[in-house]
Amino acid sequence: MKLNERGLLIVISGPSGVGKSSVRKALFDMPGQDLVYSISMTTRKPRNGEKEGVDYYFVTKETFEEKIKNGEFLEWANFVGNYYGTPREKVEELLDEGMQVVLEIEVDGALQVRRQMKDAVFIFLVPPSKEALINRLKSRGTECADELQERIDKAEKEYLLAYKYDYIVVNDEVNNAADRIMAIIRAEHARTERTIHKYVELMEGK
Amino acid sequence: MKLNERGLLIVISGPSGVGKSSVRKALFDMPGQDLVYSISMTTRKPRNGEKEGVDYYFVTKETFEEKIKNGEFLEWANFVGNYYGTPREKVEELLDEGMQVVLEIEVDGALQVRRQMKDAVFIFLVPPSKEALINRLKSRGTECADELQERIDKAEKEYLLAYKYDYIVVNDEVNNAADRIMAIIRAEHARTERTIHKYVELMEGK
Repeated sequence: MKLNERGLLIVISGPSGVGKSSVRKALFDMPGQDLVYSISMTTRKPRNGEKEGVDYYFVTKETFEEKIKNGEFLEWANFVGNYYGTPREKVEELLDEGMQVVLEIEVDGALQVRRQMKDAVFIFLVPPSKEALINRLKSRGTECADELQERIDKAEKEYLLAYKYDYIVVNDEVNNAADRIMAIIRAEHARTERTIHKYVELMEGK
Repeated sequence: MKLNERGLLIVISGPSGVGKSSVRKALFDMPGQDLVYSISMTTRKPRNGEKEGVDYYFVTKETFEEKIKNGEFLEWANFVGNYYGTPREKVEELLDEGMQVVLEIEVDGALQVRRQMKDAVFIFLVPPSKEALINRLKSRGTECADELQERIDKAEKEYLLAYKYDYIVVNDEVNNAADRIMAIIRAEHARTERTIHKYVELMEGK
C-alpha cells in the first residue's frame, strides 16, 4: 500500500568516469522496478537508427533556444556545438502518473535541476577510491596525457560537490550500487513529507 | 563498502495497537540483518525465567530515580508503579561498535529520544486504515467497552504525532513493513550527512 502516489524524480550524478551509465543500466535491469528514463532533447542530428521520442527529441537550434528562454528545461548544456536538455513538462507528466523518473546527468546539470525541483532525490555516485577513478578514466583509452589530466582535474573539482546531494552511493560494484539506489527510492517514498497528507486523509476516513 | 561506520539508532513507534512488536520481530527474522535490540532497565521484579542483562536490567527504584536525575536515560516512563527506561550509555556503545540499534517504543518515549538523539531515524508505523486499528484494539479482547474507548482515544491522539517522525510506514502486512524499514536503514546509511566525512578522507587518500 502506497501512501505517496506521486512519482519520484531521481537524479543520479557523480564525477566523470565513476560509471553512472553502468549503474543506471543495472537499475533498469532489476526485477520489479517501475523506473522510467527521461528522454533528452537535442539539436544534434539523429544517428543511424536513432528514433524521435525514443532516443531523443530532435529539434532545431532555434526551437531549443526558444525553450531555454521560456524556462522549459530542468537542465541543459551545450557540448561541442550541440544542445542537450531535459524538458520539464515530460518529467512532470511522468511524475503525475506516479512513475519514478531517472535522470542520469553530469554534475553541472544536476545542480541546475536542484534549483528547480526541490523534492527530487539527488544521488551522488562515487568511486571506492581516487585510484579507482583515475584507473577508470585511463582505461577509457584514446585520450592523450594532457586530455587525461584535464579529465582528472575535472573529476577532482566535481567530487567536492558531493555535499550538495542527498545521498552518496559508492560504486564499488555496479549491482551493489543499484541495490543501494533501489533502497533509497523505497525509503524516500516513505518520508513523512511525502506521506503525511495521504495518511491524515486515510485516518480521517476520506 | 560502507562509508558510514557508525551504527544507526532506529526508533520504531506508532499508535497503540498498530503492531509494533510483530514488525520488530519480523525485522529481526530477516536474513542478513545486523540489528540489535536495546535492553531496557526496569524496577519491576523479574518474572519466572527472565534474565538480568538479557530480558531487562533489573534495578531498584532508588537506583532508577538516581539515573533519571543524572540524565542517564534516552527515555523513561512509569507504568502502574514500575519504571521502564532505555539507558543511554549502552545504546551509545553499540552505535560506536557500528551496530544498528532498534528501539521499539511508545510515542511518548520516541519523542523523548528525539530531543536527545538528533541523528537517530524515527519511523512511525501506521495502520492501513482507522478501521484496521480499531479492529486490532478490539481483537486484543479482555477490555471492557470503556477501556476500549480509552485506547481508541489514545491512539487517535497518537496518530496525529506522525509529523514529528522522519518516515511513515504502513503496516499493511508485517513483512512488507519490515522490508520497508530495512530499505530505510540502508538508505539512511548513504545519506550525505552520514557519509561525506569518510568520503572526503577517502578521496584525499587518508
